Amino acid sequence: MARGRQQLLVDTLRRFVRRGASTHLERVLEKTRAEDIALALGELPPRESRVIFTLLLEIPTRAAEVVAAYEHSQLEELMTGFDAELLKPVFAEIQSDDAADILAELPPEFAASILEALEDEDSEGIEELMQFAEDTAGGIMSTEVFALDKELTAREAIVALQESEDAEMVFYIYCVNEEGHLVGVLSLRQLLTVPPATQLKDTMVSDVISVPVTLDQEEVARIVARYDLLALPVVDEFNKLVGIITVDDVIDVLRDEATEDMMLMAGLGDEDIALKSTGQAIRARLPWLLAGIVGLMLAAALIRSFEHKIEQVAALAAFIPVVVGLSGNVGVQSATIVVRGLAMGQLDVSGLVPAIWGEVKVVAAIALVCAFAVAGISFLVGGQNWQLAAAVTSALFVSMLFAAFVGTAVPLVSERLGIDPALATGPVLTTSIDLVGVLIYFLAASAWLKL
Amino acid sequence: MARGRQQLLVDTLRRFVRRGASTHLERVLEKTRAEDIALALGELPPRESRVIFTLLLEIPTRAAEVVAAYEHSQLEELMTGFDAELLKPVFAEIQSDDAADILAELPPEFAASILEALEDEDSEGIEELMQFAEDTAGGIMSTEVFALDKELTAREAIVALQESEDAEMVFYIYCVNEEGHLVGVLSLRQLLTVPPATQLKDTMVSDVISVPVTLDQEEVARIVARYDLLALPVVDEFNKLVGIITVDDVIDVLRDEATEDMMLMAGLGDEDIALKSTGQAIRARLPWLLAGIVGLMLAAALIRSFEHKIEQVAALAAFIPVVVGLSGNVGVQSATIVVRGLAMGQLDVSGLVPAIWGEVKVVAAIALVCAFAVAGISFLVGGQNWQLAAAVTSALFVSMLFAAFVGTAVPLVSERLGIDPALATGPVLTTSIDLVGVLIYFLAASAWLKL
Repeated sequence: MARGRQQLLVDTLRRFVRRGASTHLERVLEKTRAEDIALALGELPPRESRVIFTLLLEIPTRAAEVVAAYEHSQLEELMTGFDAELLKPVFAEIQSDDAADILAELPPEFAASILEALEDEDSEGIEELMQFAEDTAGGIMSTEVFALDKELTAREAIVALQESEDAEMVFYIYCVNEEGHLVGVLSLRQLLTVPPATQLKDTMVSDVISVPVTLDQEEVARIVARYDLLALPVVDEFNKLVGIITVDDVIDVLRDEATEDMMLMAGLGDEDIALKSTGQAIRARLPWLLAGIVGLMLAAALIRSFEHKIEQVAALAAFIPVVVGLSGNVGVQSATIVVRGLAMGQLDVSGLVPAIWGEVKVVAAIALVCAFAVAGISFLVGGQNWQLAAAVTSALFVSMLFAAFVGTAVPLVSERLGIDPALATGPVLTTSIDLVGVLIYFLAASAWLKL
Repeated sequence: MARGRQQLLVDTLRRFVRRGASTHLERVLEKTRAEDIALALGELPPRESRVIFTLLLEIPTRAAEVVAAYEHSQLEELMTGFDAELLKPVFAEIQSDDAADILAELPPEFAASILEALEDEDSEGIEELMQFAEDTAGGIMSTEVFALDKELTAREAIVALQESEDAEMVFYIYCVNEEGHLVGVLSLRQLLTVPPATQLKDTMVSDVISVPVTLDQEEVARIVARYDLLALPVVDEFNKLVGIITVDDVIDVLRDEATEDMMLMAGLGDEDIALKSTGQAIRARLPWLLAGIVGLMLAAALIRSFEHKIEQVAALAAFIPVVVGLSGNVGVQSATIVVRGLAMGQLDVSGLVPAIWGEVKVVAAIALVCAFAVAGISFLVGGQNWQLAAAVTSALFVSMLFAAFVGTAVPLVSERLGIDPALATGPVLTTSIDLVGVLIYFLAASAWLKL
């Protein structure tokens, strides 16, 4: 929906809420897409969105769709104060994976009261899912998987499909044996094109791609992207089918992971800052800048310790930003290549040494070209002092190589240690490069200028 | 497939190629997934991968899958030298959208010879697609869309589905009227659950989401993500159904766009650098660093013009990195928020002024905290010179606000001008902030220290 139409929806909802026009509101809620209602609710003042939510509760299937599409981190504000009994029919309609995600975002007591209100069959699936780590296959899968006994015929399978209530997004039919082990897969279209008496086991593909319940969600996304899958079955340690991950969940993972990497690398915390309040945004951003202050003040103290050299050759000060700025740029280039390469599955930690060596070689060539350019310009800008130009040039070369080394090694080593590589390569990395760049520069100056 | 198994496949293929064991090779090519073969071919030396490709050409359906899964930018190396007539059966099997993408990557004459060899029905769809800009709905859609007349019955629809050859990934059935206009949609499952005599028009959902052929691919991806779609029909200006975008294409768009943004912001060009040769990587990275040299040398000249001040108070030099480093960090934070917000559809250019104003307010609060921290530390590090500390603090505050302003305004204005916002916020932005930071710092120093 275009911005204009979305704004129109928000305005319409507000007008009807203010006039208390419940019947009109109900009609709008019924005929508008749930995703659009969810977005509009998020843009309304809390009091008004709660009025609409109250009306929505009368239509639990609709409310379930809206709740599932609503930004989960904002649901607490929308739902707090509503009675668990009132919310029960809504949660009964939400897919188990979404329900588990939502309950994880609500205050524990509130979540517990909703779980308690639910029927056992609904709450069990959700509680099971809540045990899995959020960023694993188990954390993003749904337990509503459509699986059939491999001994059934195509005709029986079609009947079973017609009778199934949940499992909205069926495109593959998973076949299991009597122990519930995943043994094959076939597409809905395949089911239509075989003679009705064919047993599933005779038409299914038995080489089915599945993932273990503990697999990291980024790896799940890579597998789905690589094999162009619409859904991916999840199995436990005994190959028993326990859930399904659909491609829409994978799209969310891809968007979230890319956002997270970009946010971390810029020193903005690990969540989408656009969804945060001003206060939260400040708290997310400040620590990185304060850490930067510490690093840069160390650089200042370092420069002060070389102050007698600046007193002798004041032009020395002019080239500090050249050395640290360019090294910082190179470090960011190297780190970005590694962080994105790890995320895309093009790189893995087994290639630590070749990756570092490859990057240092490329940067050596780049640094050589930069050094030539800098040699000439700094000779002119520095007042035709060739020793100063030599100091700037050699310091830049060494400092760029150092930046490439740490820019590559830090994220790779972090990954190996189980730390998010993007976290390790934010502003802290560039500040460290600044600090070391200053040191290299003054050491080079001492050597060339014989200070 | 895990790294280890992938390496095993590469080793097996190499061994068989060296022994000339064609029968063994053919068996491996038949039983291995096309995506895994494609990856392995990319890791083999060109001579060996071409031997395997020659064998693959004997099995056109398999070859088509491998070619579609192969990194498109590397296909030229694999295919050049093969006769168009030999490649014809392969291209006849490739989905039209993939074929168009691949031909766009090949040398024009080679692509033209392949198109000429193809039957008219195949080449027409491909040529049509090649006319659309690569990054639009038309550029990523496939023309093999499964659409049925809305007057058909469910029974007739199932027969049509059973008889259709192409259109592998059918999950929705699009309904058209006699003019070919898109009028509704129904799911495959819905088709199975209605009485066989029901006409499609009586069970279809007529409120179908579609996109115009010219829509930007990022917007397409946002719509698919927002409404959890598996496929999205593409219509021309008269609402005539012309193609379909499937979710696997959208996953590629999401990954590519995130990669592109990260590469551009780090000054690495606009393509995935991991896929480039060393020479290409150097050529992609150097221009940004050379531009940085120009900017930073201007900063050096600027500092030199204030050299008499440094001669009077040498400690002034020590705090240059503090002011420019922190401002650079804030600028990157602001730019990242905007670039990602635009990509995720949370921001648009209509909100230019509020976005800038909001960001400047947040940064004012952040800068105030940073200024307090810097005031104390710089007083100590600077040798208890309160005028110097005041100069550092006030310069930092102003420079951070400036960084937030340009960090927000530059990508938003670029977007409005149709320039990729990530392109405008690479190293050039941080270098500009460095330059202005230096200027602000020395102006503040002149004022406070009365130099």
